[in-house]
Amino acid sequence: MAKFVYSFNEGSKDMKNLLGGKGANLAEMTKIGLPVPFGFTITTDACKDYIENGNVLADGIMDEVAVHIDELEQVRGKKFGDIENPLLVSVRSGTPISMPGMMDTILNLGLNDDSVKGLAARTGNERFAYDSYRRFIQMFGDVVLEISKSKFDKIFNGQKEKVGAEFDVDLSADDLKEIIVGYKALVKEELGREFPQNPQDQLEEAIQAVFRSWNNERAILYRKLNNISSSLGTAVNVQSMVFGNTGNTSGTGVAFTRNPATGENALFGEFLVNAQGEDVVAGIRTPQPIAQMKEALPEAYARFEEVAEILEKHYKDMQDMEFTVENGKLYMLQTRNGKRTAAAAVKVAVDMVESGLIDKETAVMRIEPDMIDQLLHPTFDAAALKANTAVAKGLPASPGAACGEIVFSADAAAVASEAGKKVVLVREETSPEDLAGMVAAQGILTARGGMTSHAAVVARGMGKCCVAGCSAITVHEDEKFMEIAGVKYHEGEVISINGSDGSVYIAEIPTVAPELSGDFGTIMGWADEIRDLKVRTNADNPRDAAQAVKFGAEGIGLCRTEHMFFEDERIPKIRRMILADTEEERREALAGLLPYQKEDFKGIYKVMGERPVTIRLLDPPLHEFLPKTEEDMKQLSEQFGIPFEKVYNKTVELHEFNPMLGHRGCRLAVTYPEIAEMQTEAIITAALEVKKETGLDIKPEIMVPLVGISNELKYVKKVIEDTAEKCFAAAGERLDYMVGTMIEIPRAALIADQIAEDAEFFSFGTNDLTQMGFGFSRDDTGKIIKEYVAKGVLDNDPFQALDQTGIGKLVEMAVTLGKQTRPNIKLGICGEHGGEPSSIDFCHRVGLNYVSCSPFRVPIARLAAAQATIRNKR
Amino acid sequence: MAKFVYSFNEGSKDMKNLLGGKGANLAEMTKIGLPVPFGFTITTDACKDYIENGNVLADGIMDEVAVHIDELEQVRGKKFGDIENPLLVSVRSGTPISMPGMMDTILNLGLNDDSVKGLAARTGNERFAYDSYRRFIQMFGDVVLEISKSKFDKIFNGQKEKVGAEFDVDLSADDLKEIIVGYKALVKEELGREFPQNPQDQLEEAIQAVFRSWNNERAILYRKLNNISSSLGTAVNVQSMVFGNTGNTSGTGVAFTRNPATGENALFGEFLVNAQGEDVVAGIRTPQPIAQMKEALPEAYARFEEVAEILEKHYKDMQDMEFTVENGKLYMLQTRNGKRTAAAAVKVAVDMVESGLIDKETAVMRIEPDMIDQLLHPTFDAAALKANTAVAKGLPASPGAACGEIVFSADAAAVASEAGKKVVLVREETSPEDLAGMVAAQGILTARGGMTSHAAVVARGMGKCCVAGCSAITVHEDEKFMEIAGVKYHEGEVISINGSDGSVYIAEIPTVAPELSGDFGTIMGWADEIRDLKVRTNADNPRDAAQAVKFGAEGIGLCRTEHMFFEDERIPKIRRMILADTEEERREALAGLLPYQKEDFKGIYKVMGERPVTIRLLDPPLHEFLPKTEEDMKQLSEQFGIPFEKVYNKTVELHEFNPMLGHRGCRLAVTYPEIAEMQTEAIITAALEVKKETGLDIKPEIMVPLVGISNELKYVKKVIEDTAEKCFAAAGERLDYMVGTMIEIPRAALIADQIAEDAEFFSFGTNDLTQMGFGFSRDDTGKIIKEYVAKGVLDNDPFQALDQTGIGKLVEMAVTLGKQTRPNIKLGICGEHGGEPSSIDFCHRVGLNYVSCSPFRVPIARLAAAQATIRNKR
Repeated sequence: MAKFVYSFNEGSKDMKNLLGGKGANLAEMTKIGLPVPFGFTITTDACKDYIENGNVLADGIMDEVAVHIDELEQVRGKKFGDIENPLLVSVRSGTPISMPGMMDTILNLGLNDDSVKGLAARTGNERFAYDSYRRFIQMFGDVVLEISKSKFDKIFNGQKEKVGAEFDVDLSADDLKEIIVGYKALVKEELGREFPQNPQDQLEEAIQAVFRSWNNERAILYRKLNNISSSLGTAVNVQSMVFGNTGNTSGTGVAFTRNPATGENALFGEFLVNAQGEDVVAGIRTPQPIAQMKEALPEAYARFEEVAEILEKHYKDMQDMEFTVENGKLYMLQTRNGKRTAAAAVKVAVDMVESGLIDKETAVMRIEPDMIDQLLHPTFDAAALKANTAVAKGLPASPGAACGEIVFSADAAAVASEAGKKVVLVREETSPEDLAGMVAAQGILTARGGMTSHAAVVARGMGKCCVAGCSAITVHEDEKFMEIAGVKYHEGEVISINGSDGSVYIAEIPTVAPELSGDFGTIMGWADEIRDLKVRTNADNPRDAAQAVKFGAEGIGLCRTEHMFFEDERIPKIRRMILADTEEERREALAGLLPYQKEDFKGIYKVMGERPVTIRLLDPPLHEFLPKTEEDMKQLSEQFGIPFEKVYNKTVELHEFNPMLGHRGCRLAVTYPEIAEMQTEAIITAALEVKKETGLDIKPEIMVPLVGISNELKYVKKVIEDTAEKCFAAAGERLDYMVGTMIEIPRAALIADQIAEDAEFFSFGTNDLTQMGFGFSRDDTGKIIKEYVAKGVLDNDPFQALDQTGIGKLVEMAVTLGKQTRPNIKLGICGEHGGEPSSIDFCHRVGLNYVSCSPFRVPIARLAAAQATIRNKR
Repeated sequence: MAKFVYSFNEGSKDMKNLLGGKGANLAEMTKIGLPVPFGFTITTDACKDYIENGNVLADGIMDEVAVHIDELEQVRGKKFGDIENPLLVSVRSGTPISMPGMMDTILNLGLNDDSVKGLAARTGNERFAYDSYRRFIQMFGDVVLEISKSKFDKIFNGQKEKVGAEFDVDLSADDLKEIIVGYKALVKEELGREFPQNPQDQLEEAIQAVFRSWNNERAILYRKLNNISSSLGTAVNVQSMVFGNTGNTSGTGVAFTRNPATGENALFGEFLVNAQGEDVVAGIRTPQPIAQMKEALPEAYARFEEVAEILEKHYKDMQDMEFTVENGKLYMLQTRNGKRTAAAAVKVAVDMVESGLIDKETAVMRIEPDMIDQLLHPTFDAAALKANTAVAKGLPASPGAACGEIVFSADAAAVASEAGKKVVLVREETSPEDLAGMVAAQGILTARGGMTSHAAVVARGMGKCCVAGCSAITVHEDEKFMEIAGVKYHEGEVISINGSDGSVYIAEIPTVAPELSGDFGTIMGWADEIRDLKVRTNADNPRDAAQAVKFGAEGIGLCRTEHMFFEDERIPKIRRMILADTEEERREALAGLLPYQKEDFKGIYKVMGERPVTIRLLDPPLHEFLPKTEEDMKQLSEQFGIPFEKVYNKTVELHEFNPMLGHRGCRLAVTYPEIAEMQTEAIITAALEVKKETGLDIKPEIMVPLVGISNELKYVKKVIEDTAEKCFAAAGERLDYMVGTMIEIPRAALIADQIAEDAEFFSFGTNDLTQMGFGFSRDDTGKIIKEYVAKGVLDNDPFQALDQTGIGKLVEMAVTLGKQTRPNIKLGICGEHGGEPSSIDFCHRVGLNYVSCSPFRVPIARLAAAQATIRNKR
């Protein structure tokens, strides 16, 4: 028969899956001789069995429990339910992965009408005994019997009123006895049966309640939100009680071995003299800093310092501990690796390497890559934040915190910003024309659009705070107000937004600027030594490029040329090009754009030095550049002296039912080779000129987007090569350049061997690959994906973390096929996934050469890449 | 050194790639002892060599030619350029695959100012000799020297006028001599050199001209349109001349061994006494039916009958022959397999099997599957058609011919049709609401939309003639006229359209109804014996299903349930469902639809008997069912008593940027399981009721569309199963049914092993698989694909013939993975490709169980499936 119960002296820290985190660590502490009140753990297997049997405990389990209770009685020299010297226990849940939302602790289990007397006699403290009993009934009634807490509170407060007691402590033992009578009557009334007097029954009911709580709503929700498997189950820890509330030589506390906010190497925590665990939390008395325990309980403190040091050395990580002191003696109730801020994580890791506790690889593995965001962006002042409640929640589209006056247009943002005001740009959704306004704003808030909407992508590129797709907001851009839950907020009112969690506040919350420590540099240096993947950035302008270089980018993996066309001076020229009737007219308009593009590239080359720069040819469908409203069309028609009808007809002609699958990418270059010619000329001559001016040896990588057919690349490559030759001839000088393609059409992955005949590099455009591979338009399916994740149809949003099962298979195929044709083909990724740690791990495993991501994710990618190397080596 | 020239006695019919079709068959006829004027062939390799060398003849080639000319001189006992007895030759191109657009024939090569005298003396016919010479100069001047034909005509007609000659034959030898002087002067003037007098030079120039003509514009265009590789090259045939114009014992003609229009087993052709080949074509004299040759040239005719029989037995196929009779002696100039109508192809094949000439498999291989269309649809009366010219050309979206008055709305079509009028429905593009009008019309003409647009798909389903995407037409539906090239055509005017070639005529052209012969049944019966693939049909209603069964469909592979929602009584109910606020309201509306759906399915089941029927759950995005214009929305709002704003907001809410990749397919069923429930209930209870009423054992196949994630299918399958169980419980009876899925999302193919855990069958939706695999929206990329095919980027439109390289790879993966999980998984295809022969061949090769196509393509698919079996066995 399976073993369902483990004594604390049978387990170890490596048995978390079976014993839960708490149980495993209690066993571990027991094993290494630390003072742990004895007890045992009922395994997660028992829980699974319970659930599989339709919430029925298997026969053997309570028998096993009985055996362990016997053992406990012997160890403690007390008896369960005894009137002389009763054994009391706590019952706590313990999951393999830390998980709020599970059943709370039950203390003092084992008390009944008889044993309470024994406890009173034994401690000589009747009030303490009855207070313990009434607490037990209350906790048990609430969490096991599921009687509303407020009903107990009513009885309790009734008694207080009756006797004129101000505080709980003002109640006497007799008052408490009366309360107990009331409690028991309540239980009988609610359940039609007496409050269980038999400690065995109490225990069995408590165990079942813990198991049931695995599937309560909060727990299910938490698991879904955090991608925790629902098949893990919870363990139950039964531990003999120790009392911190027996007098002034007792107490209870929680502490970290180091400061979890800063990482400083000193005990950090709180304690209360003469108190039980729950009192610390209840907030009735203010706990004292842990350092003061040295005076209050000097011996216990000394022992605690010792234990803390032992634990940190043993676990080789910062510990988060709970303890109780009973009559001067220290008891450890819990230890676990402590949660910490990014800053603390960095400092602790570096300190531990320096003290020889861990090695560099371990240090690098200790930092959660996504946490690094905290270090790079402004955050809200923690105190100020506490005082405010979010009025709405959107998607955490680009991390950081922002605070400013609401503006509803890019122009307004620019004007206000010039006037020295801080503003938050609020839009239905942004478009490329809002760029200047986005630069001017502190942050961006949109009502529509997902994690890869225009606002999100551009904001991340800039490292600017952005909350996107906040559907609770209705934006009335023309009338200059927005509505949330029926309340209107006008231009000029101050809001604050948190791009790291999507919260929106109608309040002025001060922000704190980020500061990078030397430890951060140290960790990143170690990561760079370790990682195999190169890290590039997606950048379309010198500003972003410079930011990325500062963050350690080793090149540009994606420079989107279309973003350059939206600036005020340029958009008319691209529109003229689109409205052209003949190739000649088109060439004329393009000639006007050439100098701008060339200057753009020169600027970028100069920032990047000899780092590789991948430039993508024009990608979006041309209709994106045309005005949307009739009014704007009229204006355009006047501007160019072109009949309105012609402008209108052109937009109708270019309209597409599914622009995602329309006339874009290299298809534009096949139809209008002159566009690719102009861009190639700009790319090549810019490189030649920079070489001449600075001596830098620029080797541009020209990337042809949206190839799905090998001949598309052949066709465009010829245009590029012919143009490049002309440029070389004109300049009387040559340079090396590469031509490659994005692999973003599913078919491209399938025929990558053919494409590699012409492509010198592949850059995986996993955004589009995901869109087409799943058949999900990211502009439309935000809601569906949310629903899918909620219903468990999808584990993750595949636009956030690369779907390794399906889309990853396409990537792998393309890698294999591409290398078949061209063994030294350069391989990278430039989709949004290039900055996401699990996706970076995948990229490492399939053998890409680099990942590319937005500038502010470069440090994250560097760290994640190092972790991938370490993880996959192990 | 390579051999570039083959004598006719060196080659054979199997050497088409090297000698071209004409040369190979001349060699073959020589080999089997038929009377062929001796000659030789310069190979296609020589042509390729010529082109690769930049249009320069390799050194050795003309040396080889000289050797063969020597041989020819010896055989014929004549000398090239001889003044006494000159050898004259014809020079003709000959390609491996028959190909118009290549260089024309040059006759009488070898004549010059001297040898013409020899010819005159030898034949005693001066006029004949000089007429031959002037013809030679004229032909050579035109096709080799590239001097405009009209310039020669001007000289020729000038002479006629000058001497008052009405017909060419009225010109005397002296007149012809004068013309020759004029011709030679023209050549000198145009080229600055004399007309070549040296026969060797003439021959070399002619050979080069043939080679060059491989890359003339017409030839390139023809190759592109017909998918002929440009690397094949052409051969040149040099053959000694025989003359059919030496008097009344001579003549020339062309004939088929059987009637190419009907297949009747009797010589069919024309001849002319005392004429050269070109005279038959020139139309100056009216040729006589071949039968009359029996009287005019009895001996030659008897010999020709003999030769024809030998050839047909030798080639085991109907032959298309050219011959000349010189002084009573028959000479064969060409033979090849004759082109024929579908009717003839069927009759010839069956007759040949019956006479033991070929076996059944050969007979089945002889019918071009696509030609069968001719037998199933009305065609234009051939004579009437000749008198008309198309005013516009669209896509041949659904074959057949139609003639009727123009109508611009479905309602008008219905009204006119009820009044007994024949109409052609002309629309910008059709939508599901036009269905009744499409049924009422003779044919459908649309200005937009491709081969897989709504109009095209539905028309093919009905077997109704349709020309789609005719962009030359501007349709003004409201004003009831259309415009073509500036001319307006109003409702009521009569047009004719040809769905087989896309032509549009402003004329009444009578149509001929199709008639199926017994021979057709015989061939189809043989095909059925041979083929491995089953053939099902795509049908959404009993009418189409019955038609398909008549054509031999063995089941329904795709029944689209959404088509059932568009009928007048139903569309309000589906709209009510979409506008519902709560699940309850939605269920109420759905309950109203249930009886209709159930009756639909009962009707289909009854037609199909126990043949399998695959029913697809609702697929299109819901906004397709909502009104598009504000006016219609207002009407809807009044109809339901729902505020206009709500209707409007709902349409805005449901709007999608890329509906193709939006909220459709099984995603609807996950969001609104109640829709899937209603449909399942209709499917199952209909089957139960039909079983009860008729005893038929119906086993419905329920198909879940657009699955890309294995959990989607799990989720929907559970809904289906739970509902089915409820139906069984209610009916007190069970039946078998299957649940399967479409594989139409690229990711589905990649994870087909996971999907097969729940799917009992896969049906490949290769339309969507092509759309997403290529990233081509079929609604948008018609123009791009056209351009791609024109520029050689794509060989074929992948929406017409399945792209076996890329999309086919996905299909193969899914087949392999699916069988891994479920070895007996049922596999079919229900995309448009299911009726296309090359795609059917692919389906056979990858091991599908069936193809499914529109009813009128069922016979084509049966034949193509049989051919696939034969082809892949060989």
